[in-house]
Amino acid sequence: MTPPTMPAFQANESVFTWAAPPLKFGTGALNEIGTDAAAMGVSSCLVITDPGVREHGVPDLVHDLLLKAGIKAEVFDGVAIEPTDRSIATAAEAGRSRAWDCFVAVGGGSTIDTAKAVNLLTTHPGELLDFVTPPIGAGKAPWLPLKPLIAVPTTAGTGSESTTICVVDLLGLRLKAGVSHPRLRPSLAVIDPRTTLSLPPEVTAASGMDVLCHALESYTSVPFDAKRAPDDPQRRPAFCGANPISDIWCETALRLVGANLRAAVFNGRDLRARTAMALASTYAGTGFGNAGTHLPHAASYPVAGAVREYRAAGYPAMPMVPHGQAVSVTAPAVFRWTYPADPARHLRAAELLSGRTFTTTDGPEALPNILSELMSDIGMPSGLHAFGYAEDDTEVLVDGTLKQTRQLAVTPRPVDRNALADIFRRST
Amino acid sequence: MTPPTMPAFQANESVFTWAAPPLKFGTGALNEIGTDAAAMGVSSCLVITDPGVREHGVPDLVHDLLLKAGIKAEVFDGVAIEPTDRSIATAAEAGRSRAWDCFVAVGGGSTIDTAKAVNLLTTHPGELLDFVTPPIGAGKAPWLPLKPLIAVPTTAGTGSESTTICVVDLLGLRLKAGVSHPRLRPSLAVIDPRTTLSLPPEVTAASGMDVLCHALESYTSVPFDAKRAPDDPQRRPAFCGANPISDIWCETALRLVGANLRAAVFNGRDLRARTAMALASTYAGTGFGNAGTHLPHAASYPVAGAVREYRAAGYPAMPMVPHGQAVSVTAPAVFRWTYPADPARHLRAAELLSGRTFTTTDGPEALPNILSELMSDIGMPSGLHAFGYAEDDTEVLVDGTLKQTRQLAVTPRPVDRNALADIFRRST
Repeated sequence: MTPPTMPAFQANESVFTWAAPPLKFGTGALNEIGTDAAAMGVSSCLVITDPGVREHGVPDLVHDLLLKAGIKAEVFDGVAIEPTDRSIATAAEAGRSRAWDCFVAVGGGSTIDTAKAVNLLTTHPGELLDFVTPPIGAGKAPWLPLKPLIAVPTTAGTGSESTTICVVDLLGLRLKAGVSHPRLRPSLAVIDPRTTLSLPPEVTAASGMDVLCHALESYTSVPFDAKRAPDDPQRRPAFCGANPISDIWCETALRLVGANLRAAVFNGRDLRARTAMALASTYAGTGFGNAGTHLPHAASYPVAGAVREYRAAGYPAMPMVPHGQAVSVTAPAVFRWTYPADPARHLRAAELLSGRTFTTTDGPEALPNILSELMSDIGMPSGLHAFGYAEDDTEVLVDGTLKQTRQLAVTPRPVDRNALADIFRRST
Repeated sequence: MTPPTMPAFQANESVFTWAAPPLKFGTGALNEIGTDAAAMGVSSCLVITDPGVREHGVPDLVHDLLLKAGIKAEVFDGVAIEPTDRSIATAAEAGRSRAWDCFVAVGGGSTIDTAKAVNLLTTHPGELLDFVTPPIGAGKAPWLPLKPLIAVPTTAGTGSESTTICVVDLLGLRLKAGVSHPRLRPSLAVIDPRTTLSLPPEVTAASGMDVLCHALESYTSVPFDAKRAPDDPQRRPAFCGANPISDIWCETALRLVGANLRAAVFNGRDLRARTAMALASTYAGTGFGNAGTHLPHAASYPVAGAVREYRAAGYPAMPMVPHGQAVSVTAPAVFRWTYPADPARHLRAAELLSGRTFTTTDGPEALPNILSELMSDIGMPSGLHAFGYAEDDTEVLVDGTLKQTRQLAVTPRPVDRNALADIFRRST
């Protein structure tokens, strides 16, 4: 009985983890949500959504399908776009209106993130800050059973249906923060491309660029085995860096976005393009949910958070920088800067997105050029100035980015103030 | 509030499902099994294995790591290779020896399948036949909570860690049958390539060919949307046919097997090749666990079941055709026959396996030739005659294959007695 040979002490990480929710995908997948919920043995569901999504009818369709399957259901449509601790408290109150067996989130990332928080807060005593990642919050892990959570993404962008993360604006602290635990991951994701047919082109474009950035950031994040192993394996971070499983999903997502995003923006009723983008979103979510995003996402938080007057066409009439716009505005500059960390991978990404061929002689500009071309074609804002930012906002944006430690930890080059300031200046 | 447009009635399936267990993968992954089990909140684990695997020390290592994490543990090493209703009853008795909180399966497909059955039988009243797929059994779904099941595959072959299926020999009925339910899927798969370093070359070869066939059969199975939609979505079969998610897993697995199986067989201590094969096995398991296998797997059951005297080097000294040998012996003939169903996909598979380029002028022989070359290089038995079968066994083999309705349902060409007889004759 010889035990297997153990390798010598390894300073570097040699293990990665990966998980994804069960998926039901395709045209008509949503029709089965009543019987899917019934098969989970639940007898009452709160459908959580936002007013904009409700206008297009999907939440009430879900409500009716649940009733038809003999399940008590109500719709709560008070989710805020870019949820805050206050909007989540309101949603949690709705979640306590009766002893719901199950939550169904119908919408984009804001809705699915809110539903994760509602699930946590209605099954546990305490407040959101108890669960927020340290140092901002107490970082408690859920210790009681959660309810089943079914996610029905309607934007082909979020990826929240695949992840363990809920992002929230803490109004008192003027900070974006996260709650993350494997048990927050939805129990089932139902992805029906028909739900995206009515998205306006601006939302399709921004959500699509969010998908692209999920895939591209994960693909270029620090490889899992280039980091030190954690002292305690239970403290392995939620974002483990690029790994052989996330790479596959990210590559496939990049190819699909490159081939289909323009078509989905130009003709929203193109079900083939919509289906491809819904698949790409799912693939990217499966990739970044484990590998992690890096600088464009880190920078998006202050870009969205410091907004003054900007209002985006296609979105609610209030000052806001939609997440996909905030993420992608720095992407060309970021990927010019990260190029030296792994030139081959950056060129490969440019190839996957464009179908063209690149070599090292094309250099660091190849990928940023492909990104800028695509963004220009689909009418994405062309720089930070479009959101009302000027040179003297750089410091605020740099400060806010430096607080995003989870993303900075998998950014493929060491980040400092100068590098960030340069990236923001090149993104104006 | 306009509901989304519903497409007209569709006779064809438009929805697929996909799920996989959470994975922990890499050199050293096994070291963390104690803390992983503790994080699940369990306080006692039965480690389930077979005597051959126990000899190599991994089950006792797992036992010690569990103890070290404060978890009561015992090892049960009575699993039978190719489990039967009788061997499963014995294992279930061990499972009832105390109120175990958790099961840990350490071994190949036989062990992981047995542990799934033990989990079912120790948490539910009744007997195995109550849960076996109709028409053979009563096809009951589990209705009580199951215990967490951690799978530690040690063969880089089975894929059972990813699937919902348990295959069992029903001795009284002289039939192979299956129990399948989403809740039988392991709660966690821990894949540490070091556990495969001590496999003898014959086992590496046969397990590797099983991986190859999982990937190739799923990849060439009936596309999910070429079948009729089920009347009741809850009766969608466990095997849904080739789909955009399984295709990606399968393509990647084929590329890895083509590039690494020879190296893993020729030098079992090659950790790089072992790691690639462990990844390939996981990828293929995740693919076929949803899409399904077809004819080579269907044919493997009678090929293994009707064995008389054949004993395989590297395996226990008893008459048996190892699963990977039984599966792959008909593979060249099967994929010559399935070629017309989708020539492009067969040629693409040949390319992924070989790194060479093929066009339609290479025709139906391209893929079988690549398979035969590989099997010859790694010393796989070259035909049914090696197992002791002769021309007059064909009828028994055909009869046994025709009983495998789950696999025949996703076989890409209609199967009849003549086609099967021809495939068996070409595989002698």
